[in-house]
Amino acid sequence: MKRFLPTTLKSLWEKPPCGSVVDVHGWIRSLRKSKNVCFAMVSDGTCQQPIQVVATPEQAQLLSYGASVKIQGKLEISKKAALGKQQYELLAEKVDLYGKVNNDYPIQKKNLATEFLRQHPHLRVRTAKQNDLFRLRSDTLEGVRSFLAKSDFIETNPPLLTSSDCEGAGEVFLVTPHSKKKDSTNSSEFSNKDEQSPSFFGTPTFLTVSTQLHLEALALGMSRVYTITPAFRAENSHTSRHLAEFWMLEVELAFIETMDALAGVVEDLIKYLVQYLKKKGYHREHWNHLMNEWHRISYTEAIDILKNSGYTWHDPPAWGNDLSSEHERYLTDVYIKGPVFVTDYPASIKPFYMKPSSNDTVAAMDLLVPQVGELVGGSLRKDSIALEEVPKGLEWYYEMLQQANTPHGGFGLGIERLLAFLEGNATNVRETIPFPRSSGSIFA
Amino acid sequence: MKRFLPTTLKSLWEKPPCGSVVDVHGWIRSLRKSKNVCFAMVSDGTCQQPIQVVATPEQAQLLSYGASVKIQGKLEISKKAALGKQQYELLAEKVDLYGKVNNDYPIQKKNLATEFLRQHPHLRVRTAKQNDLFRLRSDTLEGVRSFLAKSDFIETNPPLLTSSDCEGAGEVFLVTPHSKKKDSTNSSEFSNKDEQSPSFFGTPTFLTVSTQLHLEALALGMSRVYTITPAFRAENSHTSRHLAEFWMLEVELAFIETMDALAGVVEDLIKYLVQYLKKKGYHREHWNHLMNEWHRISYTEAIDILKNSGYTWHDPPAWGNDLSSEHERYLTDVYIKGPVFVTDYPASIKPFYMKPSSNDTVAAMDLLVPQVGELVGGSLRKDSIALEEVPKGLEWYYEMLQQANTPHGGFGLGIERLLAFLEGNATNVRETIPFPRSSGSIFA
Repeated sequence: MKRFLPTTLKSLWEKPPCGSVVDVHGWIRSLRKSKNVCFAMVSDGTCQQPIQVVATPEQAQLLSYGASVKIQGKLEISKKAALGKQQYELLAEKVDLYGKVNNDYPIQKKNLATEFLRQHPHLRVRTAKQNDLFRLRSDTLEGVRSFLAKSDFIETNPPLLTSSDCEGAGEVFLVTPHSKKKDSTNSSEFSNKDEQSPSFFGTPTFLTVSTQLHLEALALGMSRVYTITPAFRAENSHTSRHLAEFWMLEVELAFIETMDALAGVVEDLIKYLVQYLKKKGYHREHWNHLMNEWHRISYTEAIDILKNSGYTWHDPPAWGNDLSSEHERYLTDVYIKGPVFVTDYPASIKPFYMKPSSNDTVAAMDLLVPQVGELVGGSLRKDSIALEEVPKGLEWYYEMLQQANTPHGGFGLGIERLLAFLEGNATNVRETIPFPRSSGSIFA
Repeated sequence: MKRFLPTTLKSLWEKPPCGSVVDVHGWIRSLRKSKNVCFAMVSDGTCQQPIQVVATPEQAQLLSYGASVKIQGKLEISKKAALGKQQYELLAEKVDLYGKVNNDYPIQKKNLATEFLRQHPHLRVRTAKQNDLFRLRSDTLEGVRSFLAKSDFIETNPPLLTSSDCEGAGEVFLVTPHSKKKDSTNSSEFSNKDEQSPSFFGTPTFLTVSTQLHLEALALGMSRVYTITPAFRAENSHTSRHLAEFWMLEVELAFIETMDALAGVVEDLIKYLVQYLKKKGYHREHWNHLMNEWHRISYTEAIDILKNSGYTWHDPPAWGNDLSSEHERYLTDVYIKGPVFVTDYPASIKPFYMKPSSNDTVAAMDLLVPQVGELVGGSLRKDSIALEEVPKGLEWYYEMLQQANTPHGGFGLGIERLLAFLEGNATNVRETIPFPRSSGSIFA
């Protein structure tokens, strides 16, 4: 299936054709020229390992940092192989230059600050660090899907445009049709007709904050469904873990009846993923701590732990209030020192669709992890409901639960938070997605 | 990894534990009661094959059409196995009812019209037909990703919120923040502050019509990238192949230099997918015709063929105009009788980013397929560009191409059209996605 495509470095390293002449395409990540010889590190971004190209001074005239090139050469064991540093090198026979970078190229060799690179999202993918993170993203998605496919989940795509509002409140984005006409000068002019008109869909339409309710409908016919989907929140947050546009894994299961089973699926999923990534060659020191059994405490226990901590809280813990980030951080980073499921929250602070677990609590669970905080939120759902309990506009949801009510539950997991957690080192979610969106800025 | 989950029919059929007692969960798709025995077909939606449950009249009292149930029973070879119709059956030992459907349940046993079912998207997944289509969707996505992973593509997620407009014109959706407050009566009230305000992102923001330009930026650092992403068009179309919200596979490759290679990747992808689906047990008669070499003609040849057809066109073919659906239909269904790549379109009807292939044509290709029409659109991209050629707001795109210009190209493939094509029988795209969105209606 690669018959029309050139060889990538990824496939080259899988079975290095030592002694053969090969074509390598890529970008020059570093360059060392001396009087007699030139060493260029070339990467095509398909894997972590670049290739060292050895060129003559004459060939090297074409080479410069950042340039895109095609090098034909013979793959040989490097003379430095004994040092274990660089096993192979490419002895250049033919050097073709596609293009050079200009003097104003912002991505220079020196170790650039992530905040600086964030200003150049269209170019930062060419750095080794961002390149590695985006490959981790791809392999993480693959690993998540692998677990779910093996567990008989069906992938589906609930809508992003919706007249429903899953969480029942909050800051959402309104969507309206807009006629955008290209005029002769190529500037963007907008016609004002239809602005705010609900006539396109016949009702005010929003970008989804969660596809859960639609996913429930699908689980009640296919048993196990998931989607990896964009979701949107118009919150004015500028933390390292919030985005206005983010991707979520949302999972919904019919015939699940206990919180232990639901939390078990989450724990198995993430542990499977870590093993999957290790097999793909990724290693992070802190992953080793994840393989023990994860702690599970109730919300009520969590409040007691926080109250007995001896800490002076900015926001004192109190039964009936949400846990704040400082509370979450204490539980994961100080008290438990690892991931923890917090279960059975007060019904008063949770949405209408959650199943009661006592007089005043619901069968909700949050997975909190070190550094990142809330990574997963889920619950068992009510399988029967009164019409009065359902927010206006969700009559279809009521009707759905009326027809063969079936125990079910599910959870949502933020992909960017998962990646920040996996990468560690206090990675900001803005580095885990190619073009991050948050209030105040929309580059490109 | 299934340790917390009940057995699905899918895993049951993979290795039927004949003679063992098993628990089956699902919904009753049909029911036959006689004086001495009851036969119920139960499906959990995880695979095509339901299970036949044999119950006593006493057990059967709990059973009714549409109900969700848990049946414990012994799996046996059916007495009718000799007839080859139903190999196994479950001899019920314990019957648990979760819930029944009401008298107003719209999904009755009789063969329901797709248009009728479309009015009940929250329930139609419980029909065998929609269930099959949604599993085909899941397996199609898996097959597409399998091909791309084996070809060293990296999955990525370009933004959906954008200030750019890839196609340079057209009907788009405007996105504005909207404060939605829950009041005490649970009705949806909207505060009007911030309406139409560009202040959230600082610039007018739209839902993407194609992530291509952002994907190009990523290809120019990772060589081969793809996304399976939602895209949006605010077109007032009511055809069987248009949706306001649809999913697209978008693929972008660096170091690709010919149209033959680009079309070759598309052809290999779809042929691989068909083989993949066959291995998964899917069969469609018309798939056999796909395995031959696909035709490739230039746009200029296409116009000649249409002109020489002897047909009286509603919209007469003329060099410099787009092909209409009647033109596409003639080429695929009458003239070629199969898929056809049409290449090298007039530059005047194509966007600014396409690479010239002659004085007045660009290296664009469309894949047309029977019944559906345009399934894929792609091109080689300009690898250098003048600032004047770039629409306002896309200065970043200009800057990106300035830095190490690199040959590249790519294509977009509509997932719902692909599914309509694979399914055949003039399937409407509205049946291939769980909750279809088009102008005038937004159920749920």
